[in-house]
This record gives sequence, structure tokens and C-alpha cells, in this order.
Amino acid sequence: MRDVAIIGVGVTKCGELWDKSLRDLYVEAALKAIRDSGVDRLDSMVVGCMSSGLFVGQEHLAPLLADYLGQCPIPSTRVESACASGGVAMRTGFLEVASGVSDVVLVGAVEKMTDVGGDEATYALATAADQEWEGFSGVTFPGLYAMMAVSHMEQYGTTREQMAAVAVKNHESGSKNPNAQFPIRITIDDVLNSVKVADPLRILDCSPISDGAAAAILCPADVASQLGKKQPVKILGIGHGTDTIALHSRENLAELASAGRAAQKAYEMAGKKPADIDVAEVHDCFTISEIMATEAVGFFEKGKGGPAVEAGESAIGGRIPVNPSGGLKSKGHPVGATGVAQVVEIVEQLCGESGERQVQGARTGLTQNMGGTGASSVVHILEAM
Amino acid sequence: MRDVAIIGVGVTKCGELWDKSLRDLYVEAALKAIRDSGVDRLDSMVVGCMSSGLFVGQEHLAPLLADYLGQCPIPSTRVESACASGGVAMRTGFLEVASGVSDVVLVGAVEKMTDVGGDEATYALATAADQEWEGFSGVTFPGLYAMMAVSHMEQYGTTREQMAAVAVKNHESGSKNPNAQFPIRITIDDVLNSVKVADPLRILDCSPISDGAAAAILCPADVASQLGKKQPVKILGIGHGTDTIALHSRENLAELASAGRAAQKAYEMAGKKPADIDVAEVHDCFTISEIMATEAVGFFEKGKGGPAVEAGESAIGGRIPVNPSGGLKSKGHPVGATGVAQVVEIVEQLCGESGERQVQGARTGLTQNMGGTGASSVVHILEAM
Repeated sequence: MRDVAIIGVGVTKCGELWDKSLRDLYVEAALKAIRDSGVDRLDSMVVGCMSSGLFVGQEHLAPLLADYLGQCPIPSTRVESACASGGVAMRTGFLEVASGVSDVVLVGAVEKMTDVGGDEATYALATAADQEWEGFSGVTFPGLYAMMAVSHMEQYGTTREQMAAVAVKNHESGSKNPNAQFPIRITIDDVLNSVKVADPLRILDCSPISDGAAAAILCPADVASQLGKKQPVKILGIGHGTDTIALHSRENLAELASAGRAAQKAYEMAGKKPADIDVAEVHDCFTISEIMATEAVGFFEKGKGGPAVEAGESAIGGRIPVNPSGGLKSKGHPVGATGVAQVVEIVEQLCGESGERQVQGARTGLTQNMGGTGASSVVHILEAM
Repeated sequence: MRDVAIIGVGVTKCGELWDKSLRDLYVEAALKAIRDSGVDRLDSMVVGCMSSGLFVGQEHLAPLLADYLGQCPIPSTRVESACASGGVAMRTGFLEVASGVSDVVLVGAVEKMTDVGGDEATYALATAADQEWEGFSGVTFPGLYAMMAVSHMEQYGTTREQMAAVAVKNHESGSKNPNAQFPIRITIDDVLNSVKVADPLRILDCSPISDGAAAAILCPADVASQLGKKQPVKILGIGHGTDTIALHSRENLAELASAGRAAQKAYEMAGKKPADIDVAEVHDCFTISEIMATEAVGFFEKGKGGPAVEAGESAIGGRIPVNPSGGLKSKGHPVGATGVAQVVEIVEQLCGESGERQVQGARTGLTQNMGGTGASSVVHILEAM
């Protein structure tokens, strides 16, 4: 198996981008990544997207985006794993290069969510849950994560204030990210007093609906410095895990088993442990998700994620800075694009390109991306070469 | 790169299968393939499906189907490339094994199309075309392929009778396939006099709307005979090509450039030429598609596909038997599943398991699968080990 490196990255702003279509967003991120890398050709493309069918009435994205990027006739593959589509796209791009089938691969991911109304967007997102058991009974994602939050509070004594601390921390970081959808500072009181969505989650516990795209250029690690002009970042480890799609089939609602499994595999492959990680982006689609994710990847013991964020351990400057980009919460959550956007942030952090939100001396980073309530999860461990 | 073999296959019947859901169909095909191979574990899964979002309101298929097959927590990846989703799933499974990341991989593909009405199904299928240019103006796939047919007739003198000969041949073969949706013999006159859909295409020039699934087990070729109990079939070559998604951007409407490119790559990788192929399954979503596909993969010269089928060259017993399964036309076309179903047919042919429709002495086979009007195309070359 060939070692694989990332030699270029690009993202768009996240937000309600009325003047840009899905194809515009993808091409914008892709061109930024190509320019960042300096490569003069692509051998293949991978496209991550959750539901262009329901959001913009367009399937067959892989050739569509190859076409709009002027890259036909190269192979182009679209992958979908709900909100983990970006993470799975990264892993598929890794397979292209690791196998020897392709040398220079563009992994791009995109979601255009604001072309439909709120009800339709909520329906589209709910197709990441089990339609026959969960969707059919009317439950949507804030409701599902609320049940997970209640379970975590009951088992470990996690508080609403601790969840609110995730939002406050991530908006603080996001305020330093020019691409963030909501670069605003907020307080614990703002979160606690914001409008209720699904008890105990308030609107400021939830990530927004976003348009956006992100892209990365992959190549064999041994030619990374010849092929590109950027400092290469090596993909040291990848883990991909699955869990039951319906929440009612899980043994423990307060645990993200797929993320734990994915992290374990990624650490093994990388020969690293949680203490080796200098900076991380994890999947904070709701504030409780970040608490559960930081426990699943081993940054904090089970049940200690809440106190840790409250104590500032995961802030920039803390023991293990989590979501310096602002996370899904402040930066935005174009669902299918998120997994690649996380990788972009970590690559920039490892290359010292993160400006005001730079984590000093970061050499090894981790991303954790998941779909639905964690039925699929992908973890990457990256290191500056 | 490791060599890859197929060591087990399974398909469901195609049809309007009211008593089976998408997950039922996938699991049925997967269990048949697992049983056929005799393997006692899977390392990862790939799921091919075009639009479960629009057809059954369910995304996030990869973990859903891992869950329903009892395979969590293994990695599971869904890929989409419209009607080439199955072909792209096979290629993605190939990457899993070739890279060394996984040893035993289930590639399964499925589509459940009859849970929605005809208008909704037509809309869902039309999302494989360019929504902003083609879908928006109201054109659907019979209309797009009708334009390609007219262009082929004009450039090469292809006749309606030659197109009808594709349907007659494929229904003759399909009548010997117990899994076929329409195992009925028809005549040239039946086709010519059937109801007009989009001139010059009649209803009997079109493949049906189908439910169905297909699956294959992949593993490294060097351990294929130890791991499985079935005669292994090696994947000698894979080609994957893309073309402009909108028909109006093509240089020549009567040519499938992506299929030509994919075939060229597959032949190069396999060290084979068209004359080495003993049996093939090609993408006959319309009768004109088979004529164009057999030209693109090099079985017949450009413009000679029509006369060749009329002369019986591509019938079972002819020079190069094409679509012995009955093809999409008679066997059925569960869109995302078709690319894997083609591989299943060729594997069974190469193993001498095709009963009444067996192509005698077949050792090397080819599949050609495409999405939309050929914006994506995947070609596999398979050989009995």
C-alpha cells in the first residue's frame, strides 16, 4: 500500500450563498485546492455529497462536476454517507492513491442546502435516519440528539451549561475564521436562553443549515514535494466505522460506538495515541455531539467531556484544542462537505496558515466526521511531513 | 497493486416487487453472494444506488445496509453515478482490495423504483441529466436517447428495424432467464407497432422501471481459491470514463465517448482486445444504446452496430454474444443495481452456470455500464481463473 499525502486544500465561505449554485461552490473549492497545490493535472476525482437529489434535484454529480471543472474524461466517483460523506470521500480518495490506480486525486465535497425551504431541508436531513422507524414516526435530528443528550446527562451528570460551553468556545474560534457562517461571539446565557428546539437543546446548541464546499489534492507521499509547491501533510491513519442506523437499536445512547471504532483503527494505523494529537476537528452538529465525540476519540474519559470543555481544556491554548475552525456550530455545516472542510482546517493548522486561530506548534492533527446519529464515522490522523 | 478476483455472486429477480423493500432486496442479493462464495467474514462493504433519496426517502444507505446485513461495525461506502452506480461500486470495491486496505469485500447494488408513481420515477431518473439545462426544459431520458437515435440514423443509416432487432434478441435471451422481469419473446413487428414514446423510440425500445439488487464478493486473486468455494473470476481490467453531462455539449450525439474511453483503459489494463471477448453485457437502456455501446467497446465499427445485430452477430451462438441475460431490456433495469447485475451474469457465464442461455466455452467476458446519456461509463474485463 502506498503512503498518501495531501498537497493542497481549498474551501468556500459557508452560509446562505444565494448567488452560487452547487456546481459553482464545488468548482470554487476545487480551483482553490488545485492552485494551493500547484499540480498541473488530475488523474481522478472523488465527490462527497449527501443529498443533491433532494436539495437541488440533481444526481449524477461525479461526471457533472468533472464536466464543470473541465476534467472529463477522467474517472469521477460520488460517495454518500449523510453528514459523513466528506470523510468517506477522503477515504475513497486515499484508496485511489494507495492502490496505485491514480497519482493525483481531487477529493471535493459540497452541499447546497438553501435552494429548498426549511421543511424540505428538514425532510432531506431526516433521510440520514432510519426512514422506516425514525423518519416515519416524525422524529428529526434535533429530537434524536436531544434523546442522546438526555441519556448523557442522566448517565454522567453532564449539564446544559457544559453543552453551552461548546457553543461559546466554537463561536469564539469561529469569530476568527473569515469563512465562518456565524463569526459571532456568544455567552453561556445566550445559549441557555435561546429558543428551545428539542429539550434540552436550544437553537444555539444546533449547527446551521449551510451552503459550502471544500477540496483537497492527494498524491503518493514519496513524490509529494516534487508534485506540489505546498508543505505536504501525510495521511497517517484512517478509520471508518458503522453502527446501527436507528437509535433504538443501540446499547447505549450516550456513546458514539462508530466514532470510537474509527478512532481506534486510525490510531492503530498511524501508530499514535490520543495524547499525540495537537489539534482536532470533530463533528459538533449539536453541542452534545462534540462532548460525545471528544470522549469517543479518547481525548477525555467517558462522561468527562462536559467538565473538560467547561474547564477550557479543548479551547485554543488548552490541552487539546478542538474545532479551532469554529466547528460545524459557528463555521457552518454544509452536510456533505463537512468531512473535507475539517481536513482542510487541520492541514492549514499543520502548515501554520490559520492566522488568528492558529494552534501554536501543531504537528499532528485528527478529524472525526459522522453521519446521522453516528451510524457512520470516519477518523483521519494527519501529520506535517 | 494487488490482483483482485470475484469469488461469489448473487442477484434477486427484477420486477415490480411489492412485497420487498430496498433493504430486503439488498440483503437477499448479499446473502446469495456470501453463500455462493462460502466466505465466513466481510472486511468492508460498498453499496451502489442511484437515488434512494428520491425513490424511497432514504439516504445514508451504507450503514443502513451494513446494519440490516448484521455487519456493523465494518466500513461501508455508498457510491452513486446514476445508472452506472453499480459499475462504479465494483470499481470502488476493486480499490478496497487492490490497495490492501480490505481482503474480503461485498459489493452490492440496489434500486427500489416502484414505491413512487410514474411521474415521480420519471423525475428521479431525470436527475441523471443536467437539471439546469436538460431537466429544467422538460426533457426526459427517452427524449434524450431519441435525439441520439436520430443522429445515429442520420450519420450511419441505422434503421428502426435494426433497433427493433436488439429488443427481439434480448427478449429471446431473457426468456431463458428465471430472474428476468419480462421473459417474453417478441417480434420485430411487435416493436415497430408498439406505442410511441419519443420518436423514433417505441415502448418496446425502452427498458422498464424495476426493483432489484445484485451482489459480488471480491478478494485478492492469490487467495481466491483458499478463501472461497467457487471457481474464481479475475478482474483483468477496469476502465472508468466521464463525458459532458448535457447532450448539447457533445461533439457527436451518435458516439458514447465515455464508454469508448473506459473500454480503451480496460483493454490496456487487461492486455486484451475486443476480439478476445467471448461474451458481454452492455448497457441497453434503450435499443439504440446497445448499438452505440457495442460500437464504443470495439465489437463493431462505428455505424456497423445496427447491421451486426440484424445479422445475428451478437446473439447467443453469434460471433460475440451480447446481453445473454436479456439485458436491461428484458431482464430489467433497477438503475443503481444494473452494473453489478451485469458482472453477476458474466461471472456465471464464465463459470458455466447460465443454463439454457449459456454461451458455450466462454472464458473472457466484458461488462459496460453507463449513467445518464453516457456522462459516466465503467467497463470491466473478467476472466475465469
